Amino acid sequence: MNPIQTIIELLSSQNLWEKDIILERNEYLKVKGSVDTNIYLVTSGSLRVYVVEEFEEHTIRFGYQDNILASLDSYISEKPSDLYIQALKKTELKSISKATFMSFINSSANHLQLWLVIIEQLVYQQLERERDILTSSPLERYKRVLARSPQLFQEIPNKYIACYLRMSPETLSRLKKS
Amino acid sequence: MNPIQTIIELLSSQNLWEKDIILERNEYLKVKGSVDTNIYLVTSGSLRVYVVEEFEEHTIRFGYQDNILASLDSYISEKPSDLYIQALKKTELKSISKATFMSFINSSANHLQLWLVIIEQLVYQQLERERDILTSSPLERYKRVLARSPQLFQEIPNKYIACYLRMSPETLSRLKKS
Repeated sequence: MNPIQTIIELLSSQNLWEKDIILERNEYLKVKGSVDTNIYLVTSGSLRVYVVEEFEEHTIRFGYQDNILASLDSYISEKPSDLYIQALKKTELKSISKATFMSFINSSANHLQLWLVIIEQLVYQQLERERDILTSSPLERYKRVLARSPQLFQEIPNKYIACYLRMSPETLSRLKKS
Repeated sequence: MNPIQTIIELLSSQNLWEKDIILERNEYLKVKGSVDTNIYLVTSGSLRVYVVEEFEEHTIRFGYQDNILASLDSYISEKPSDLYIQALKKTELKSISKATFMSFINSSANHLQLWLVIIEQLVYQQLERERDILTSSPLERYKRVLARSPQLFQEIPNKYIACYLRMSPETLSRLKKS
């Protein structure tokens, strides 16, 4: 089991998930300007995380079954954030508050070490994402993300992946065929 | 004291820094293809971290006095990484190996918690950086980074900040005057 699965199992076996949430397609889990310090587990469905900069939407993350999801900036700063999190189809989640989660994490050195590994993996993924964005060739960007996250292409509609990859849906369709 | 200063003080008071390194201007601390899992403390001078994608250099981080620096992807994965780290002027560093550092971190829950806060702050900074890159207006990119890291503009030559901000040195000079 990887560290994320281990943490999920521990939270579930100790009954620490606090809420069940059901979102219909296109419904929002969080919108700009709100504080959200919960951690979510996606039990079914899929979501996208996006920001709006200068009237343009930028999709920056996805969540689907068995993923852990959070409004990361708000989770860390405990301040309002600009993120939107929207369901792409009917989606079910479980949530745990930061307070409950941190008391679970701080209850044992083993939990702390597991969480540290998860956060370090996140740092690594964010570095990869930064390099994706800096890669000017659409084909190279597509190949990098396909190699890293093949499941994404099963779970998420093309138009959102295209936005994430910073290319038009037509360019993405063409690259997938070639 | 912030968590980074606290960790630095603890490492110093326990004599855990293992090496002193002096780099001349333009000398490399690390080049592409090498594994580097050390953590560095910059005691004087400045450095830049960059990658080369499709023959183009992208400066993605800086380090200057009192900063902690690492080849983050190599530190986390323990594999060779594409990063270059280069001194921008004569630079002095101290280093600690990942093994020594992790045994220090794992020696107390307090150290683990401090390190977790530092890594979470890094995640937050990376999110800000991702949003910088996605911001299409050069003026907005400049304002975001100036508000967040005013010291950067004291420590680092213009041409490298311009590269980091993805604009020409001429555009950056114009924005600084306006």
